[in-house]
Amino acid sequence: MFDVTRYAEAAQSLIEAGRFLYANGWSPATSSNYSARIDEQHVAITVSGRHKGQLGAGDIMVVDLTGKPVQSNTRSSAETLLHTVLYEQFPDIGVVLHTHSVNATVLSRALAGEGRLELRDYELQKAFPGVGTHESTLSIPIFENTQDIEALSRETRQWFAEHPDQPGYLIRGHGLYTWGKTMADCLRHVEAFEFLFACELEMMKVIR
Amino acid sequence: MFDVTRYAEAAQSLIEAGRFLYANGWSPATSSNYSARIDEQHVAITVSGRHKGQLGAGDIMVVDLTGKPVQSNTRSSAETLLHTVLYEQFPDIGVVLHTHSVNATVLSRALAGEGRLELRDYELQKAFPGVGTHESTLSIPIFENTQDIEALSRETRQWFAEHPDQPGYLIRGHGLYTWGKTMADCLRHVEAFEFLFACELEMMKVIR
Amino acid sequence: MFDVTRYAEAAQSLIEAGRFLYANGWSPATSSNYSARIDEQHVAITVSGRHKGQLGAGDIMVVDLTGKPVQSNTRSSAETLLHTVLYEQFPDIGVVLHTHSVNATVLSRALAGEGRLELRDYELQKAFPGVGTHESTLSIPIFENTQDIEALSRETRQWFAEHPDQPGYLIRGHGLYTWGKTMADCLRHVEAFEFLFACELEMMKVIR
Amino acid sequence: MFDVTRYAEAAQSLIEAGRFLYANGWSPATSSNYSARIDEQHVAITVSGRHKGQLGAGDIMVVDLTGKPVQSNTRSSAETLLHTVLYEQFPDIGVVLHTHSVNATVLSRALAGEGRLELRDYELQKAFPGVGTHESTLSIPIFENTQDIEALSRETRQWFAEHPDQPGYLIRGHGLYTWGKTMADCLRHVEAFEFLFACELEMMKVIR
Repeated sequence: MFDVTRYAEAAQSLIEAGRFLYANGWSPATSSNYSARIDEQHVAITVSGRHKGQLGAGDIMVVDLTGKPVQSNTRSSAETLLHTVLYEQFPDIGVVLHTHSVNATVLSRALAGEGRLELRDYELQKAFPGVGTHESTLSIPIFENTQDIEALSRETRQWFAEHPDQPGYLIRGHGLYTWGKTMADCLRHVEAFEFLFACELEMMKVIR
Repeated sequence: MFDVTRYAEAAQSLIEAGRFLYANGWSPATSSNYSARIDEQHVAITVSGRHKGQLGAGDIMVVDLTGKPVQSNTRSSAETLLHTVLYEQFPDIGVVLHTHSVNATVLSRALAGEGRLELRDYELQKAFPGVGTHESTLSIPIFENTQDIEALSRETRQWFAEHPDQPGYLIRGHGLYTWGKTMADCLRHVEAFEFLFACELEMMKVIR
Repeated sequence: MFDVTRYAEAAQSLIEAGRFLYANGWSPATSSNYSARIDEQHVAITVSGRHKGQLGAGDIMVVDLTGKPVQSNTRSSAETLLHTVLYEQFPDIGVVLHTHSVNATVLSRALAGEGRLELRDYELQKAFPGVGTHESTLSIPIFENTQDIEALSRETRQWFAEHPDQPGYLIRGHGLYTWGKTMADCLRHVEAFEFLFACELEMMKVIR
Repeated sequence: MFDVTRYAEAAQSLIEAGRFLYANGWSPATSSNYSARIDEQHVAITVSGRHKGQLGAGDIMVVDLTGKPVQSNTRSSAETLLHTVLYEQFPDIGVVLHTHSVNATVLSRALAGEGRLELRDYELQKAFPGVGTHESTLSIPIFENTQDIEALSRETRQWFAEHPDQPGYLIRGHGLYTWGKTMADCLRHVEAFEFLFACELEMMKVIR
């Protein structure tokens, strides 16, 4: 049993995040899914297929860390396991956001055949925890898109067991997953990633 | 005779859609036209030449399925037949939106000589009804632009008789037509198409 | 002597146009200038160097058709003559808007050495008066930029004596001039031009 | 000791500037820092790491011209010395804004190996003080990014001792510094620089 006040606060933070992310064009056409931890065993997560700029209380449900609905009669996002595997792996994170921007989609496809995006020499890398200089390298894995979410969740678990400090990943032609201790941290990560994706795409256009 | 409450609701949904579509830059300079079904014989549709971000009650009229005004003393969009032919062909659709974005215009011209735009490997294809995987192919016909709307309406009717599951089409240098059961469905289709058009154009810039 | 109510209405329309044009990014950093006709001899015009998104009553003054201030103790835009020459030449126009967008600036420079921008096969050309089909050609002259506004005003006067039906012109590296009978007409022209400029620039990027 | 009313007014101007700059996408993910002069010895400046679109009274502190906190128990931006060196060097400036846009980042990196960005033939150059014609040249130095802010502050001091009339500089992969007598002047400079950076990047894409 989870604390209902903590559930309500988590749900409210997801509703407000949705308005922000949709307004930025990062969650169009009912794409994306968001979650926030309630306690060690429970996560508030968006119901499948809802308009992310118009989320209401009825669009947030509760799952346990195996992805099963708890006191909820609706269907959570098809990608629920990609969220819960992160909460299991990283006990100190409180929020996971999956967004779906044009830039993340195009950049991950433009890097076809490459398994990661490497970012360096950007001052904005310092927006991520533990990064103190633009001279470090941020290494973002790009997983192939699949409708087999269970397989992908195992793949991400294995990668992040080996690279626990990297703050996010891309799914090719699909979007970004990133996480943080608080909603403010996680939204900062989304903003920083979107900034860096935009820079990388622009660089491809002007550098030949 | 149509039910006035259903007319008023259809008109209201078009007025609100106009504000949204104009704010996104998809209906500039009095371009575009929108319609919503009232009943089996009647359709609410925008009056010709009105500002789509400032639609009021007087900017919506009623036509029958042959495109003739009903209890309306104004001139409907020159493209009215492109709407009514869809309502005839697909009895379960309730809304048709024609938008006019930079990306739809440029993409349809950049594909000069090609009769269709083929989209695959985008997760967002799942925003369209009946699409369960990014591995399917979305095939969007591109019709040549013409001021002979009656001829174009016959052309679209024939194409969609053969491809009833495709959710929209482009007119070259002109814009997008898409439809749905409800306004929410149809707006989701516009958003998804605009996202995919943006991705395709960006891909053209970075892939050589 | 001019009618003060017509002055006040003209000023109000310029103030509101400024908010719209600035919000669209078409009048940044105190660039641009706008005018509206009061009567056959008088024009309301923006005072030099004001923030176009924050215009107030004190930022609009009156000039006669030779560009001299009337009952106004401030300095009108350095480009006042480019406005007044149009009111002299076209007795039926009521508004002149000069905007200053990235796309107009870049497109006019990218066409270095060319004296005009020719637009065809765009459905949106129909946003201009007298254009009934995308098959017509819109021919937009591009004048070289200069700080000698009197010389430029003569140059524009001569060009439009020969091409009275074209709805606007570009100054290279500088921006757009367009006009219309009413403010709504003129704003539609700005929107249509900006749409077409964006399309042309995007076409340059994807067509090789 | 500084006058508290002047402190409060400076802080308020920074809070409002932050909302504007963040909304334009020029200060994402807690990047950027802003300052405003209180008097000859004191400067109000943003506290390190705060959300620039959500600044409140507690996010602004006071430093002296050596960068030391005054009556403030928080840590000012790591780049505080880049601000104070400008106030020392230019007694008539009242505001320094450091922003962090995609365009400034990409342009400064695309010009790898070049020590400056030269701008000419843009009418908008006239947005800067003392510039009366598009025929002048605006020369913007690009400093290499570093985490050694003290060294960079000396480097900027030396450059601007030799070029006192240039209104800003870039740090590669990092962003823009610009200043002005008033907040309105400085915001105009940011807008003008961002416009010019956008133009330069677009030119790189369409000119080959």
